[in-house]
Amino acid sequence: MPLVRIDVPDALGDARVAALADAVHEALVTAVGIPPDDRFQVVARHRRADLRIDPGFLGVRRGAEAVIVAITFRAGRTAETKRALHRAIATGAAAKAGLAPADVMVVLTENQSIDWSFGEGIAQYAPD
Amino acid sequence: MPLVRIDVPDALGDARVAALADAVHEALVTAVGIPPDDRFQVVARHRRADLRIDPGFLGVRRGAEAVIVAITFRAGRTAETKRALHRAIATGAAAKAGLAPADVMVVLTENQSIDWSFGEGIAQYAPD
Amino acid sequence: MPLVRIDVPDALGDARVAALADAVHEALVTAVGIPPDDRFQVVARHRRADLRIDPGFLGVRRGAEAVIVAITFRAGRTAETKRALHRAIATGAAAKAGLAPADVMVVLTENQSIDWSFGEGIAQYAPD
Repeated sequence: MPLVRIDVPDALGDARVAALADAVHEALVTAVGIPPDDRFQVVARHRRADLRIDPGFLGVRRGAEAVIVAITFRAGRTAETKRALHRAIATGAAAKAGLAPADVMVVLTENQSIDWSFGEGIAQYAPD
Repeated sequence: MPLVRIDVPDALGDARVAALADAVHEALVTAVGIPPDDRFQVVARHRRADLRIDPGFLGVRRGAEAVIVAITFRAGRTAETKRALHRAIATGAAAKAGLAPADVMVVLTENQSIDWSFGEGIAQYAPD
Repeated sequence: MPLVRIDVPDALGDARVAALADAVHEALVTAVGIPPDDRFQVVARHRRADLRIDPGFLGVRRGAEAVIVAITFRAGRTAETKRALHRAIATGAAAKAGLAPADVMVVLTENQSIDWSFGEGIAQYAPD
C-alpha cells in the first residue's frame, strides 16, 4: 500500500538509486510491518539545481546527495512506529546506498483504506 | 479541483498517455461529478526501472505497462463514490488507452476547500 | 518543513524557474512564518503536453506558462493564513518570475509533526 516517491539527484547513479529504493522498502517492511510484496515506488531524477534543499536547517548538514522520500499510507500508525520508520530509512539508506543519514529527508502523508485501488478497479482494502 | 498525477513508463507512448489522461478525467466527471473543465493533470514519464511496482501484490498481475494515478481532491466523497471512481478509471484506461485494468493503481488523498487556489492568488472555494 | 513540489513547463527556462522557486519560498516565509532556512523544494519540468491544465476553469485565463505549486506542511494554519499564502505566491511569482497570476495554481496538503524527518533518521518535531 504505501505509495513511495523518491526524488534523487541525477548524479546518484543507477546502482545507488536502486539500493536506496530497496532500503526504503525494507524499512517499511521491518519498521511498519508492510508485506514484502506491497511495493509501489516512483523514482524521479532531477538536476541538482532542481532539488532546492537547505544545507543546514535544524543543524543537519545536507550535501549534494540529499534525497527526499515521500510516503503515503493509511492512517493508524503510532508515533513510535513512525519514529522507527524514520530511523530505519536513514540507517538503511546509509548501509545500502552509502548515503549520509543527514541527506535523507522523509515526509509521511496519510489517507484511508477506501482511497486505494491496487488494480482491477477494486478498492481492495474496502471492497464494499 | 482534483490535482491528478499520472506516472507512466516511457514506453507507453504519447497517444496512449494522452488517452489515459483523458480516461482519468472522464472518470472523475462521470463518477464524482467533477466539472468537465476542472482539469489539472501532471504526467510524469519514467524509465521502467524507476517505477518499482510489485507484479503480484493482492493477486493482481501487473506488467510492464503498470501506471500510478494519484489524485488529490477535497474531502467529502462517500465510499461508494470512491469505489465508482476506482472502477471508472480502470475501465476507462482499458477502453481508451488499452491498458490492462490490473495495471492501473489509484491512490486518493484529501484536503479542504481553503487549500486550493486556481490562479490569481485567490482561494476560489473559500474566498473569505 | 514544507515540502514544495513545483511542476513547470520546460519552456519556462532556468532563470524563471529559479525565480519562481524563490518566490514560493519567500511567500511561505512572509505569509506563514516558515523559517528562512526551512526550504525543501522539488522542481519537475515537463513537456507542455504533459501539463494538462484547463485554460478557463472558474473564469481564470491560463496559458502556456501555467505552473502547479503543491505544498505539504503541518496542519494548523488558519484560513486567513492560507489565503495570505495563496496571494503571496501569485504576487511573488508575477513580480520575480514574470508569470501571470492566473498561471499559478496552488494546492495545500497537511500532515502532522511526527510525519517529518529532516535527516539523521530523527523526527525533529516530535523526537519522543
